[in-house]
Amino acid sequence: MNKKTGKQSFILPSRPRIVSSASFVGSKEGEGPLGGRFDVVLKDDTLGLDSWEEAETRMIESAVRLSLRKIGKEPSDADIFMGGDLLSQIIAAGFAARELRSPFLGIYGACSTMAESLITTAMLTDGGFSRLAVCGASSHFSSSEREFRYPLEMGTQSTPTAQRTVTGAGAVAVASFDLDLPEADYSHIAITGGTIGRVCDYGITDASNMGAAMAPAAASTICAHLSENGLEPSYYDRIVTGDLGSFGSDMLLELCSAKGIDIEKNHVDCGLMIFSPEQKTICGGSGCGCCASVLAAEILPALERGEYNRVLFAATGALLSPLSSLQGESIPSISHAAVIERIG
Amino acid sequence: MNKKTGKQSFILPSRPRIVSSASFVGSKEGEGPLGGRFDVVLKDDTLGLDSWEEAETRMIESAVRLSLRKIGKEPSDADIFMGGDLLSQIIAAGFAARELRSPFLGIYGACSTMAESLITTAMLTDGGFSRLAVCGASSHFSSSEREFRYPLEMGTQSTPTAQRTVTGAGAVAVASFDLDLPEADYSHIAITGGTIGRVCDYGITDASNMGAAMAPAAASTICAHLSENGLEPSYYDRIVTGDLGSFGSDMLLELCSAKGIDIEKNHVDCGLMIFSPEQKTICGGSGCGCCASVLAAEILPALERGEYNRVLFAATGALLSPLSSLQGESIPSISHAAVIERIG
Repeated sequence: MNKKTGKQSFILPSRPRIVSSASFVGSKEGEGPLGGRFDVVLKDDTLGLDSWEEAETRMIESAVRLSLRKIGKEPSDADIFMGGDLLSQIIAAGFAARELRSPFLGIYGACSTMAESLITTAMLTDGGFSRLAVCGASSHFSSSEREFRYPLEMGTQSTPTAQRTVTGAGAVAVASFDLDLPEADYSHIAITGGTIGRVCDYGITDASNMGAAMAPAAASTICAHLSENGLEPSYYDRIVTGDLGSFGSDMLLELCSAKGIDIEKNHVDCGLMIFSPEQKTICGGSGCGCCASVLAAEILPALERGEYNRVLFAATGALLSPLSSLQGESIPSISHAAVIERIG
Repeated sequence: MNKKTGKQSFILPSRPRIVSSASFVGSKEGEGPLGGRFDVVLKDDTLGLDSWEEAETRMIESAVRLSLRKIGKEPSDADIFMGGDLLSQIIAAGFAARELRSPFLGIYGACSTMAESLITTAMLTDGGFSRLAVCGASSHFSSSEREFRYPLEMGTQSTPTAQRTVTGAGAVAVASFDLDLPEADYSHIAITGGTIGRVCDYGITDASNMGAAMAPAAASTICAHLSENGLEPSYYDRIVTGDLGSFGSDMLLELCSAKGIDIEKNHVDCGLMIFSPEQKTICGGSGCGCCASVLAAEILPALERGEYNRVLFAATGALLSPLSSLQGESIPSISHAAVIERIG
């Protein structure tokens, strides 16, 4: 059976279900507008461990464990753990997988990680290769600053287009439609399709302007999704991007508008939702953990409650490395999109 | 339909085909025992470009293009390009994807990348989500030394358990069984199953002893595969590991033997095949490009010619980062296995 609706898009006839989610965030994220929604708000972003990287590892591991515990399952019950993060060689996800011991597929999609893992595990579930999979993604302000920017001790000032990397992790459990889960956290949410992204590059070289680097990828994937499936933006109650921030969101609306597609009415961005302007994060939040935790804490519960019926979750990732920037390369980016619907 | 034969293993009832492969290697690899088999042996490992990272990017991009050109296809014909490499934020694969423009799923599995992408694209193909996918993996001696070790200019001496990162890239095209490909390079090869690895960690902290770090993962996956499918090692003409090298291969045989499984008669390791002892690479070759290029240039053609009927391709990856080693962490590793059979 061909499940493709276009070069990049596909449907999931068996409708794999999203059965639970869990989120961990840092204290600054906990003080934001969604503060009360997250499962755990850390008081100490090191969790008392020796490094920020260990803390990030513990966050993603804990989010995965909690998402499974909510449905009465353990990591040993999962057929697949698919996840990643921003760190070199995805050590947060890799070291978490060492503790979880579930069969592990590591991915790298930068901040598109949660969308990449959702669509891939959903396809594997629909294909009959997983009954219970768990997706995880994390980022940590301090480990990201070390990875991509400057030592925190320098107190470097942010530029006007900068975003703040979210300290947070999100995990989402994806189950086959016929898996009996009496303790399921959600019983009305399914992934019904998706769109695999192509890498875009508009020549942005400023690593402090991720919104501009990623907006073309979001526009490319959202427009491909709508066109390949013959849909209008209004088909979705919300078109959710991952972490374009304020500058990137404006750019996305313009880029879509130039293609004759108006998504202004239903577009929201997780990077804008997680912090309030008073928190002075300049253009908003970023990082794999941003849309992963917002999806887990805000979007999915709203779907379960019936506030939305259909959401297009299009996370974007900037595929740069510190080295590629030093070598003068521009910043390629990618966006993957998952169709998440209320069912039943 | 449930296609799982155990917690980690699965079958692929539709038998996705491997229809072509391509390999690019550096000059030292070209002087090795398999020198005449590779599609392209580079004379200059920079390809005349400005950096080793750019050269590695060009290698993986070129391998993907060539694997598709051999079957009369272009990157725009591929439904999915799935690939990765060893560099931070997988910039070789990510930047290659920017040029190729195929829908891209980035993965990180260190040197297990080719096996991870093979089994994942095969599952996606069997599931009806891809008609033509291409897997790619690369490594480069000089970009890896910069990433993981010391500046080459220091002339650091290797330790007795060290391996040499292969400068090479391999690409493998995976097609659905019903895709009509009159120009297919191979017409007798299918992926019929696989086993997803779990992360293992025996506490090795020496980043110059990857063989020891990865052997437990290979043993875990190979033993899980055989046991979950009720098979004896002799079922396979060859059990191929990725790059355990001489020390790691010995360890693998011992670890399997301790579980009552004797794979000595049919085990081969790509890291031992690609260099001769006279080439003084100490324990052999390593890197994502090692088993990717050996699979493409040696294993698959041997299957097509009928020299083997069944091969278990079990690549291993060490999930460390330079930072995790500096922080005193041990080296977790993972191995994924693909069952590759001669058909028809």
